[in-house]
Amino acid sequence: MSEKIAEQYKVKTEPFYRPVSNEVELYQAAYARRMPVMLKGPTGCGKSRFVEYMAWKLGRPLITVACNEDMTASDLVGRFLLDKDGTKWQDGPLTTAARIGAICYLDEVVEARQDTTVVIHPLTDHRRSLPLDKKGELVEAHKDFQLVISYNPGYQSLMKDLKQSTKQRFGAMNFDYPDAVLEAEIVAKEAGVDADIAKKLVQIAHRARNLKGHGLDEGISTRLLVYAGQMIAEGVEPLAACQMTLVTPLTDDPDMRETLEAAVHTFFVS
Amino acid sequence: MSEKIAEQYKVKTEPFYRPVSNEVELYQAAYARRMPVMLKGPTGCGKSRFVEYMAWKLGRPLITVACNEDMTASDLVGRFLLDKDGTKWQDGPLTTAARIGAICYLDEVVEARQDTTVVIHPLTDHRRSLPLDKKGELVEAHKDFQLVISYNPGYQSLMKDLKQSTKQRFGAMNFDYPDAVLEAEIVAKEAGVDADIAKKLVQIAHRARNLKGHGLDEGISTRLLVYAGQMIAEGVEPLAACQMTLVTPLTDDPDMRETLEAAVHTFFVS
Amino acid sequence: MSEKIAEQYKVKTEPFYRPVSNEVELYQAAYARRMPVMLKGPTGCGKSRFVEYMAWKLGRPLITVACNEDMTASDLVGRFLLDKDGTKWQDGPLTTAARIGAICYLDEVVEARQDTTVVIHPLTDHRRSLPLDKKGELVEAHKDFQLVISYNPGYQSLMKDLKQSTKQRFGAMNFDYPDAVLEAEIVAKEAGVDADIAKKLVQIAHRARNLKGHGLDEGISTRLLVYAGQMIAEGVEPLAACQMTLVTPLTDDPDMRETLEAAVHTFFVS
Amino acid sequence: MSEKIAEQYKVKTEPFYRPVSNEVELYQAAYARRMPVMLKGPTGCGKSRFVEYMAWKLGRPLITVACNEDMTASDLVGRFLLDKDGTKWQDGPLTTAARIGAICYLDEVVEARQDTTVVIHPLTDHRRSLPLDKKGELVEAHKDFQLVISYNPGYQSLMKDLKQSTKQRFGAMNFDYPDAVLEAEIVAKEAGVDADIAKKLVQIAHRARNLKGHGLDEGISTRLLVYAGQMIAEGVEPLAACQMTLVTPLTDDPDMRETLEAAVHTFFVS
Amino acid sequence: MSEKIAEQYKVKTEPFYRPVSNEVELYQAAYARRMPVMLKGPTGCGKSRFVEYMAWKLGRPLITVACNEDMTASDLVGRFLLDKDGTKWQDGPLTTAARIGAICYLDEVVEARQDTTVVIHPLTDHRRSLPLDKKGELVEAHKDFQLVISYNPGYQSLMKDLKQSTKQRFGAMNFDYPDAVLEAEIVAKEAGVDADIAKKLVQIAHRARNLKGHGLDEGISTRLLVYAGQMIAEGVEPLAACQMTLVTPLTDDPDMRETLEAAVHTFFVS
Amino acid sequence: MSEKIAEQYKVKTEPFYRPVSNEVELYQAAYARRMPVMLKGPTGCGKSRFVEYMAWKLGRPLITVACNEDMTASDLVGRFLLDKDGTKWQDGPLTTAARIGAICYLDEVVEARQDTTVVIHPLTDHRRSLPLDKKGELVEAHKDFQLVISYNPGYQSLMKDLKQSTKQRFGAMNFDYPDAVLEAEIVAKEAGVDADIAKKLVQIAHRARNLKGHGLDEGISTRLLVYAGQMIAEGVEPLAACQMTLVTPLTDDPDMRETLEAAVHTFFVS
Repeated sequence: MSEKIAEQYKVKTEPFYRPVSNEVELYQAAYARRMPVMLKGPTGCGKSRFVEYMAWKLGRPLITVACNEDMTASDLVGRFLLDKDGTKWQDGPLTTAARIGAICYLDEVVEARQDTTVVIHPLTDHRRSLPLDKKGELVEAHKDFQLVISYNPGYQSLMKDLKQSTKQRFGAMNFDYPDAVLEAEIVAKEAGVDADIAKKLVQIAHRARNLKGHGLDEGISTRLLVYAGQMIAEGVEPLAACQMTLVTPLTDDPDMRETLEAAVHTFFVS
Repeated sequence: MSEKIAEQYKVKTEPFYRPVSNEVELYQAAYARRMPVMLKGPTGCGKSRFVEYMAWKLGRPLITVACNEDMTASDLVGRFLLDKDGTKWQDGPLTTAARIGAICYLDEVVEARQDTTVVIHPLTDHRRSLPLDKKGELVEAHKDFQLVISYNPGYQSLMKDLKQSTKQRFGAMNFDYPDAVLEAEIVAKEAGVDADIAKKLVQIAHRARNLKGHGLDEGISTRLLVYAGQMIAEGVEPLAACQMTLVTPLTDDPDMRETLEAAVHTFFVS
Repeated sequence: MSEKIAEQYKVKTEPFYRPVSNEVELYQAAYARRMPVMLKGPTGCGKSRFVEYMAWKLGRPLITVACNEDMTASDLVGRFLLDKDGTKWQDGPLTTAARIGAICYLDEVVEARQDTTVVIHPLTDHRRSLPLDKKGELVEAHKDFQLVISYNPGYQSLMKDLKQSTKQRFGAMNFDYPDAVLEAEIVAKEAGVDADIAKKLVQIAHRARNLKGHGLDEGISTRLLVYAGQMIAEGVEPLAACQMTLVTPLTDDPDMRETLEAAVHTFFVS
Repeated sequence: MSEKIAEQYKVKTEPFYRPVSNEVELYQAAYARRMPVMLKGPTGCGKSRFVEYMAWKLGRPLITVACNEDMTASDLVGRFLLDKDGTKWQDGPLTTAARIGAICYLDEVVEARQDTTVVIHPLTDHRRSLPLDKKGELVEAHKDFQLVISYNPGYQSLMKDLKQSTKQRFGAMNFDYPDAVLEAEIVAKEAGVDADIAKKLVQIAHRARNLKGHGLDEGISTRLLVYAGQMIAEGVEPLAACQMTLVTPLTDDPDMRETLEAAVHTFFVS
Repeated sequence: MSEKIAEQYKVKTEPFYRPVSNEVELYQAAYARRMPVMLKGPTGCGKSRFVEYMAWKLGRPLITVACNEDMTASDLVGRFLLDKDGTKWQDGPLTTAARIGAICYLDEVVEARQDTTVVIHPLTDHRRSLPLDKKGELVEAHKDFQLVISYNPGYQSLMKDLKQSTKQRFGAMNFDYPDAVLEAEIVAKEAGVDADIAKKLVQIAHRARNLKGHGLDEGISTRLLVYAGQMIAEGVEPLAACQMTLVTPLTDDPDMRETLEAAVHTFFVS
Repeated sequence: MSEKIAEQYKVKTEPFYRPVSNEVELYQAAYARRMPVMLKGPTGCGKSRFVEYMAWKLGRPLITVACNEDMTASDLVGRFLLDKDGTKWQDGPLTTAARIGAICYLDEVVEARQDTTVVIHPLTDHRRSLPLDKKGELVEAHKDFQLVISYNPGYQSLMKDLKQSTKQRFGAMNFDYPDAVLEAEIVAKEAGVDADIAKKLVQIAHRARNLKGHGLDEGISTRLLVYAGQMIAEGVEPLAACQMTLVTPLTDDPDMRETLEAAVHTFFVS
């Protein structure tokens, strides 16, 4: 039964991932000890893709949960559902992951309420267990289970930060956008544009990323560069394509828009 | 089964829509790549009508959800209902759209709570899937599924804005009121008034739109111009018709009312 | 079935309503186009009575909902109820009105939470439909259905105001207290007092209404004048009757009480 | 059925009530027109007793509801309960009162949330009906039904006050503590002490009531005087009895305690 | 049935209680009239023990409820529970007490939300009844029923205080720590230490109680003295015992800790 | 039955714990009297491990509950669950512990809402009982039951602190990180590194702990030192291992990162 579930969460094909540094080796060492891992970095820099890649490389099922402030502990752990014979317990994604030995990836965990973050404590110390208080069961984690969380330091505020007693349960890895050559390669491959256009798009992104904290909350992500390339590949004129994917989504501030448009015009002349 | 549902959401007759610029082509290119699209613009400038038109043109079913701050993730994704045999899962509108390959249009998404906006993440990246955590099912989106959201930049405040990790999942298009000639044509056609009256109504609107940010929160929408025309077509005296549709709905401020009434009197003498 | 329900909501006898200006004609023109209508005006000036009168005149059923800040969208739209055979859907008042072609009157809509006001959007544009998301049904409004809302501009604050995207869906009509002659006629008829007493009561009200914004939140309504007349008709001494109905309900401020009592004493000597 | 319920709410024995002024006649006139009535006055001055007395005098059943800020509209109107055959509607106290023609007394209505106060609107104008939205029934009030509310002006704050649109649905009567002779008579009768002791207790109360707003939130109520008398009648020494019933319950402020104790010592020497 | 329940709540053995003043007689007089009683005093001074003692002395069952801010009126009054035959009403502790004639003790009532405190009103005036609105039953209190509440004046703030309309329903008694001789006797008896050690512990407590309001929120309670004695009786060195029971639990402030430790060292030399 | 449950919560193998001072003897004395115990100290200093060790030493089952601000009293005490025959009561972890005579450990109790902390009151005084109000049962605690809570004084704020009436129910013990020699021994044993590396890691920790309150919220815990050792034991270069486990998890502040990195470089040269 649990093997059948595990199969469903396996990553079937190798995700496209190009290592930037020694992150693959570090993760493998952490996984060898089943150390919980925290991935830090800005929006769209590839944290989710990396976890997917590692799950594929390690041959482990991957269960991803997008955290949010309305998520309750029951959303992670499970709950009783009404049934024709009364109530039936249904495991939540965290419990399933603990049972089948999956990598459980809690994306943007800092968004969750405290009950979520506290729920993971017994899974992240020597106990490696998950008490289902409402069911009266203590789930011992499968030997291959590992917990991974991500968070974006740019979002964290005084109100929303992980508690130290949570933070200190994780080894942590910093992520950032890939370097220019690698990023251009990614854009070219995923959007289907030539190397020259890809390189120009990355150059625009670099200009925009320098504006982070000077009018922009966040730089242009690799994903948006791929969008721009896709529009161009569909025959849209580059200026219009960049306007739609690199300028308009990012900001409503007229000055910032103008600055971004100027960056686009530097590389694509109408 | 799903084809029967799809049929129900098909736009049967061509909606009246007059392109302003290259928006139709841009949307088609985005749809070709199933890129999620964000429509930005003021109240009543035609965003909803545009999506309806594109759904008709592309021959795709359209499922529209008016977002609000009390909407939960379950309202989008689905929930278990009690049944004589226990519980039965019922898909929410987003899940239905993902299954049948509809265009799902989340109107005024910025009004929704964060759990709604986070729910759409896995549908808007390479995964194109929707995990139904409570049901334990992972819905792979139909190949024709696309997500469209709208938001009004004028509303956005520090408290209510989309997160960057959400924004950067969308290509974005700006919308504004149609130009004077086109807008007069729309008013004449939809209200059933002659070109002269329609032109006068549009001129009044242009004066009012200049007051946005100088006492008015929002300019007069095309919809209200149509209302004014309809009242006149029903035989109501133009001044009374404009008072009821272009002045009284907009503001309770005596000075602004007087300014708007003066604009009306410039074009319609009693 | 729906005709039987419609019958139940018909206004059986002509409500007593005396037009003040051209409001009946304006409403009829709006109804001819099924334009949503917003009635603005102070407490007790006759907005509810006017809708009732128009429903009678147009021969349409009337469904009234008193809005409040704890009302949810489900209170308007409907919900599933448990049944011996599982769950059964029950239409809310707005859905019922849309099905049977009633005039649906949302009284003091500004009190409601945003989910209520957003729910009415698809019923107030070209779609004229109401999606029952939880039931998975799209209700097309009956051709005779119309939506009317009321709101009291005096209440509106920065926190509680309709959004522009809601306001711009309505034609709007201003209401105020009836003029002195008409109001005296109403008081005499409804309370059963002679014209002289009715006239004096109206004169007291006029003095009090001038105090609005200068110590009183709201002027004396026509309803309270009728109450005063009823007490007098029951044999209560006029000073005591006015104290009970025109002074004590309005304010706890000793100075304002004295001012109101002085106004009463000007017209009724003990 | 409804007669059997009515019988249960009848006031069986004449409550002890001594009229202070013309309040009985005013109430009777209001009841003759079924005018909703609001009773204003400080804690423990006899408002509840008066309603009970009038219900007895008019031979009407009385249903009392102590309002509080956690009370919902359903607590007043009714709700569906689960049953072995599914769900069963159960009338709330307001609905019951409307059906059987009782006087419904909402005590301290200003404590309730706005949905409670809005719920009573249709019962307090010419409609005299109560829509049970969740059940889809419109209850026409029994011809003998009347609504009475109480509120303590001393409590009302900017946050918690009745809306003008609610206030202007009621005739209002002011209540205060009974005069010295009458109050002493009440204390003597209810506590079982002689006239001299009762008179002294009332004199202490008069001193304390002068402190209202000068360190005390509220004066000593008649109820506390009766308590003091009861303790004395049980053989407790008067100083200890007054300490327990007239000083300690009122305040924790050392200065105010001393002032109150001095007042007690003036009349009872140890 | 109700006698069997009553038996279960009887206090079987005489609680150890040493009267400080005339509190037993005052309580007996209040109980003779079934007057509601409020016990005021600091943490751990013996209020709960006193009620228990009086229940034993009067031979009445005692039902104690620890109030808290999340407690609802239903937690006191009762609720419907689902059953195989539908729903079954289950009395809450207050209702049970009213039915069987118990003393109902609401500990720290000021912590409860307002709906709790309002619920007790009809049980604390001439009505002596408890309306179970949700069940449609009016419970007449058993002739032996009495209500007792406690509250700690030190906690009360502007936000959390009993309303005057609640306070004035109770006779009130002040409690404080027992005097030195009596307290030492209690500590010796309950901890099993000799009189000398008990006396020293009480002397430490007296020093700490003087710090209340000067760095300590509350003085050392008799309970903590008993704890200290118990540790010593178990063979723990007095300084370590006092550190664990009289210093560490009270404060995290380094200065206050030092002051408390100095007080301990004065009486116990290492 | 309860013995079978007890067996499940027994600590089967001796946890690795090295006493720092007389804490084992103090705990044993407290347990002999079943005195409730509060453990105070920073994150990751070994409080949870100590309780586990004592439970093993005393041969008692241990039930641990990670408290959080969304935890309700029902989560501790138990609740009714729907069943095919209606509802069935299910004990919560606190109730189970009270029945089977376990040590119940409420970790980070200050995070819980007040209803949780109030619930434990009757279990922590002479009553040693737990009223299940919703079930109408009074659970007498098993003679071996003991309550232990932990809290981190560094977290406590004005908003979140235990009430004095709760604090004064516990003997309290202070915990801190183990001394350098002992900590190195722990790191060497648990991570599998040699004594020299373990010593260096502890020295880094000592530098970081001095930064607590000067830019760091909390020092490096023993757990993180073990993580660092594990990475090194897996062949990761020491600088990278320390970056991942001792620097990145703790802070996002660039200055603090640099300071921590400098501390690492002092002991491990690249």
